[in-house]
Amino acid sequence: MSGALELIPVPGLPEIAEGDDLAALIAEAARLADGDVVAVAQKVVSKAEGRRRLLAEVAAGERARELAAGLDKDPALVELVLAESRRIVRAERVLIVETTSGLVCANAGIDSSNAGAGGEVLLLPADPDASARRLRAAIEAATGAHIAVVITDSFGRPWRVGQSEVAIGCAGIDPLDDWRGRPDRDGRVLAATEIAIADEIAAASDLVRDKAAGLPVVIVRGLGERVIAEDGPGAVALRRAEAEDLFR
Amino acid sequence: MSGALELIPVPGLPEIAEGDDLAALIAEAARLADGDVVAVAQKVVSKAEGRRRLLAEVAAGERARELAAGLDKDPALVELVLAESRRIVRAERVLIVETTSGLVCANAGIDSSNAGAGGEVLLLPADPDASARRLRAAIEAATGAHIAVVITDSFGRPWRVGQSEVAIGCAGIDPLDDWRGRPDRDGRVLAATEIAIADEIAAASDLVRDKAAGLPVVIVRGLGERVIAEDGPGAVALRRAEAEDLFR
Repeated sequence: MSGALELIPVPGLPEIAEGDDLAALIAEAARLADGDVVAVAQKVVSKAEGRRRLLAEVAAGERARELAAGLDKDPALVELVLAESRRIVRAERVLIVETTSGLVCANAGIDSSNAGAGGEVLLLPADPDASARRLRAAIEAATGAHIAVVITDSFGRPWRVGQSEVAIGCAGIDPLDDWRGRPDRDGRVLAATEIAIADEIAAASDLVRDKAAGLPVVIVRGLGERVIAEDGPGAVALRRAEAEDLFR
Repeated sequence: MSGALELIPVPGLPEIAEGDDLAALIAEAARLADGDVVAVAQKVVSKAEGRRRLLAEVAAGERARELAAGLDKDPALVELVLAESRRIVRAERVLIVETTSGLVCANAGIDSSNAGAGGEVLLLPADPDASARRLRAAIEAATGAHIAVVITDSFGRPWRVGQSEVAIGCAGIDPLDDWRGRPDRDGRVLAATEIAIADEIAAASDLVRDKAAGLPVVIVRGLGERVIAEDGPGAVALRRAEAEDLFR
């Protein structure tokens, strides 16, 4: 890739509710072309998939109540976090977990920022790669365009201030660009360079997304060489096994 | 921001050597316009600033030799890492440090991927924000365009596979976009959302940079509203104080 790249926000999407055909709405709102990568914010995927929960309807168990007390959190929220997790990574001040789908993030990625007492929260899609594959297939069927889909969410990062958008699901693109063994400009072989392309696409898409204006879908145009026929390994390939994590 | 955004690689830069006037070379090779953000790969900044070192000329001290033995690394490289660091974060399998300029990364960001025994390595700029400010001032003087500069480097991340480009220095743009307290689409106030814009710009720029083709400079066009008159706080604002790091 050495050509220019365009990031185009897609206006005109309605507020998404459970059961909405998100792929059809995207196909209608976006003018998609072959080779486009469609970056979709997790929030609308979760809403379409009915991943809302009411904290008032959640019964917190013993473990959730204990953890919640130590963290000064809502026991109902902690109960949901535990239900969405396979492992607690850290439980000091914040609750960092590995989700059932293998993502390491605060509060299992549950968006409770607007939930009052007993209020509504939004869970991550149960299987974001599967969501990406379904969206891709349906958007391709509706538009005839050969595209890739990346589902994105904002994660905090160790060591750095602020959140950055990352890929939690993808289809039609390899999330990693493996430069290991390829020669660089000077003909020398590059060592240990795997680039997390899907995360960089997610981050790029966030630059044109105005949270206040509600622009959950961004077209990334100019990466056509990276759009593949198969769905590829999915964003699960970005999840580092604990034993292989040199930073952990 | 809700308009489209363009990422334009800048071809035609020569191989950079110590003492080269990088700003003049960029001003000549790029057609810059008001509001452009110029993303510059750390590698060319370090080269222009003479941050090359020969491992053969480095005398490893006692501590470096001990650490190197435990990590199976070149003692000369470890000596350079220690000299560039204010603190060791981790020394198991890899050496994660906080650099003298406050970045947390492997091997103090020293690029030794192409260094044979005794060979040449490249250090990070001594003060990447100062480098960004100097580049900005000189590019603005040469072109008359009102721009921002972001200096980027590829960092590995805890919990996720692959490297992603981040901002190690910046001038003319606030590296953080603070959404805390602003209302969202539904009129509800957003909680705890600070977006690391400079890191997202760095990641985006990497998508059009072909490492083999040698394209260290990328123009990010469409973020003019974010380009400010002053230099701003610099990428140092992205470096989380250890005590405030909920992930650590």
